[in-house]
Amino acid sequence: MAVLPLSVEKVIEELGKLPGVGPKSAARMAYHFLRSTRKDATRLANVLLEMDSKVISCGKCFNVSDTPTCSICDSPLRDPKTLCVVEDPLDVVAFENAGIYKGVYFVLGGLISPADGIGADELRFKELKARITELLDQDSSLEIIIAVNPSLEGEATASYVKDLVANLPEHDMVTVTRLAMGLPTGADLEYADQLTLKRSFEGRSML
Amino acid sequence: MAVLPLSVEKVIEELGKLPGVGPKSAARMAYHFLRSTRKDATRLANVLLEMDSKVISCGKCFNVSDTPTCSICDSPLRDPKTLCVVEDPLDVVAFENAGIYKGVYFVLGGLISPADGIGADELRFKELKARITELLDQDSSLEIIIAVNPSLEGEATASYVKDLVANLPEHDMVTVTRLAMGLPTGADLEYADQLTLKRSFEGRSML
Repeated sequence: MAVLPLSVEKVIEELGKLPGVGPKSAARMAYHFLRSTRKDATRLANVLLEMDSKVISCGKCFNVSDTPTCSICDSPLRDPKTLCVVEDPLDVVAFENAGIYKGVYFVLGGLISPADGIGADELRFKELKARITELLDQDSSLEIIIAVNPSLEGEATASYVKDLVANLPEHDMVTVTRLAMGLPTGADLEYADQLTLKRSFEGRSML
Repeated sequence: MAVLPLSVEKVIEELGKLPGVGPKSAARMAYHFLRSTRKDATRLANVLLEMDSKVISCGKCFNVSDTPTCSICDSPLRDPKTLCVVEDPLDVVAFENAGIYKGVYFVLGGLISPADGIGADELRFKELKARITELLDQDSSLEIIIAVNPSLEGEATASYVKDLVANLPEHDMVTVTRLAMGLPTGADLEYADQLTLKRSFEGRSML
């Protein structure tokens, strides 16, 4: 005998597909909806449908957008001489929240990961190449900042981008940089892993 | 400048209302939807709307149901001489999954909690009283099993039910029991809290 109505089981199943949500938390969430008097389930349903119908990819940077070009690419205040290459839209959010960057972005849509079967063809390298050419048409110099996670997949992706740029006819107009690796704020040197310590040592700067 | 489209921000806001979901996990979930090619957002939206339109409370036990009386209350195989009083529908799921109980349930909809401003009037005690009378009309004896969490709120609720039964004219036809308290399976006696140890000691049984 099914304990919960089928319609509730279906909600639990869908919620269970979310990252970090197991069957027990999915059940707790479904129950939260059932208990709520403010029709939270209907509200969430409506905003999900609205998002699915409105959100597209920015034609320039492939960030999520509800306009053909996103507000960052459209802004005359952003410097088109620096292009920050990131994995996904949440990385753009992280940069924007830090308020440290005034250039434009390019969202790859993932990192090269042979273990997960994600090769270069699955990512937006063709589009990245086109975007670099387009930016170089407007200006005679470009810095490409590779801002990916310091993981094996990040390393593979970074060197792919480096090679891609090296093979461009305009490669001498482009500088490729990447985010510094080292100790994070508040870290305890004693507990830092060996690679972090190595990178932090290699990247030491003058005081 | 808003970094994410408004329609995405709205989804993050609604997801952030779920139990155990902070702003960062809500953003990750929203991004999961944006990344999914299988229209997961629309699927979740549809099942949420279906749940909100179909699910009602069982008229007898107040468990969630998509029929006026739930499948448990409707079943001729369930014993109406035992009534298990629980806090919420997920407790019914836990009992049913354990497969140890063949009686019927009553879902209170919460526990008495003065700290959260939940008094007896907020819970289904009037309905519980009516249900007890109804069951006693069918049979001359009834065991009420109080199956609530062993917390302050659980204690308060349990003694409220006990008093409620004691004040019934048919109180001598009713036995009120509650779940045993003691060491859980796999527990280490050394690390058990004092109350658990006390309850476990008091409730010791013959070998």
